[in-house]
Amino acid sequence: MTSNCKPIVSFLGPIASYSHQAVRQVFLEEKWELRPVATIDDVFDETQDRQVTAGVVPFENSTNGSVVFTLDNLADRDGRYKDITVDGEIFVDVHHCLLGRRGPDGKCDEPYEGSGTCTPTATDPSPSRPKSAPLSSLGHIKRLYSHPQAFGQCNAFISTHLRGVEIFEVSSTSRAAEIVSQDETGTWAAISNQLASSLYGLDLLGKNIEDREDNTTRFLIIGTNPAVPEDWDLQRQSIAKSGSKSLVSFAVPHTAPGALADVLSCFREFNLNMTSINSRPSLLAPFQYIFFVEFEGHRYDDPDGRVKGALDRISQVAQSWRWLGSWERYR
Amino acid sequence: MTSNCKPIVSFLGPIASYSHQAVRQVFLEEKWELRPVATIDDVFDETQDRQVTAGVVPFENSTNGSVVFTLDNLADRDGRYKDITVDGEIFVDVHHCLLGRRGPDGKCDEPYEGSGTCTPTATDPSPSRPKSAPLSSLGHIKRLYSHPQAFGQCNAFISTHLRGVEIFEVSSTSRAAEIVSQDETGTWAAISNQLASSLYGLDLLGKNIEDREDNTTRFLIIGTNPAVPEDWDLQRQSIAKSGSKSLVSFAVPHTAPGALADVLSCFREFNLNMTSINSRPSLLAPFQYIFFVEFEGHRYDDPDGRVKGALDRISQVAQSWRWLGSWERYR
Repeated sequence: MTSNCKPIVSFLGPIASYSHQAVRQVFLEEKWELRPVATIDDVFDETQDRQVTAGVVPFENSTNGSVVFTLDNLADRDGRYKDITVDGEIFVDVHHCLLGRRGPDGKCDEPYEGSGTCTPTATDPSPSRPKSAPLSSLGHIKRLYSHPQAFGQCNAFISTHLRGVEIFEVSSTSRAAEIVSQDETGTWAAISNQLASSLYGLDLLGKNIEDREDNTTRFLIIGTNPAVPEDWDLQRQSIAKSGSKSLVSFAVPHTAPGALADVLSCFREFNLNMTSINSRPSLLAPFQYIFFVEFEGHRYDDPDGRVKGALDRISQVAQSWRWLGSWERYR
Repeated sequence: MTSNCKPIVSFLGPIASYSHQAVRQVFLEEKWELRPVATIDDVFDETQDRQVTAGVVPFENSTNGSVVFTLDNLADRDGRYKDITVDGEIFVDVHHCLLGRRGPDGKCDEPYEGSGTCTPTATDPSPSRPKSAPLSSLGHIKRLYSHPQAFGQCNAFISTHLRGVEIFEVSSTSRAAEIVSQDETGTWAAISNQLASSLYGLDLLGKNIEDREDNTTRFLIIGTNPAVPEDWDLQRQSIAKSGSKSLVSFAVPHTAPGALADVLSCFREFNLNMTSINSRPSLLAPFQYIFFVEFEGHRYDDPDGRVKGALDRISQVAQSWRWLGSWERYR
């Protein structure tokens, strides 16, 4: 197989983004071309138009919640993405790193203690202690680049070890690493991730500098059935499966009291465990919604017919509905 | 009653914000001091601490969906807002206006036609025609200030009547009007609202310039029971009520399959119509949630005991739950 024949998976770039990390967990670069694109809409467009075989988009973060751009595309209000299905999910633990150039007195393999004291401020009168120390002295750092959300997730480290450093907000953590890689003074640093460290040739000045340990983003793998090759998740065949999940969207007749409860009761009636509910504006009329329900079960691996039973019932009580996909769980 | 004795209602400022418009719909300035604050958190803080009698916060927009900052405060994960209840709702139709100074050839009372032609671009190959024309010639306008969301909601008007004008993104539509009020060249304009026009003494150059007609934001009135005076909604006493609504939050035991369906079935069992469902991360463990359900019915105006019945049942099946408030509907 020449490289021209490789199937393509597109993802929300730039390179070294958390989406890129998600793709690399599942899609082997020997078998797939990994293509960064500019927006979540682009991933959906390229997938629907069969320019790519699969796409990877962020779906929810354990701290910040749902990614509305992905939900809005799955809502598919104007029928642009009618062939798209969800074929899998990928979890990426978000670990922020401080990247830059080591200073003149820099060491790298053991934690550098510094003062370890957080400064109370008006907005954060009792700051928490950072859970990790710098890997190197940070006294030479004058500028700090990152995405606004990443600054918010590394408050304790910044207020302890980077007091007085000038803050520059940019569009992504990987863009921050790219900017810092072009610095010739050696005094700029980026809050980014470990993949960006190797891709941009930057020193690791701090590792796991985020305030919370349990910050995880869940990504969805989308495709156009049945175009995804059977061997797409080779990397995970050694991991034990832990059941399967499905995603459906639906709208309810807004003049019928109890219509939402009627649809939701379909899952209970067929003993299917709902694991998430989301809603987005329908844009048909104010304060009418498209709902999204995830539940445990697989449309095509349904020996006792419970999934089929629930979907049949939903088709009777919902105003409109759509099965968006079923996939195996690996976590 | 002197002005010092007036109860205070705080809202998300600055003045002339859509929150300010919401407050003015309900709280008479003869009886209330209207206090703008910097953030949604500030409204919750001042209300919980009894520095103010009531607060007004945005809850959802019919186009953009839920306001997560408000949901996160209602989730009240650390018990900071334990006394806060929701006591009412206010709807504000979002109508964007173009504010600035009329040009040398300006007229004001009749629509100015201009070319009326939209320019197709790479990102918008078939632009829609704007639904309203300028009230005045716009040839002298060189700069346009507004909030990024407002630019997005006025695409057709901008691409038709303000081609080539330099765009400046600022933190709010009312801040945009404030900046333009300080312009001495007469060539700056703001996408803002009609209230800002009078408060900042700017000419109305365009009215209802938004792409979609049905853009509405819903605000919640919060208080600390029973501190809200009975006469707070005097302005609405002439409007017919259309029933009542309640809001509850709950979490479910994540190890029990079907737990979410069990809680949701409480509303169906007591024939209470659910009108919205939202969820936010619990922050106790990844991908566990706090759910919010709105339903028709009032905890303290419940002649057949259905609300009491449902809340009693929820207290048995939810891991934790909270009644957040009941209020009259006026729409």
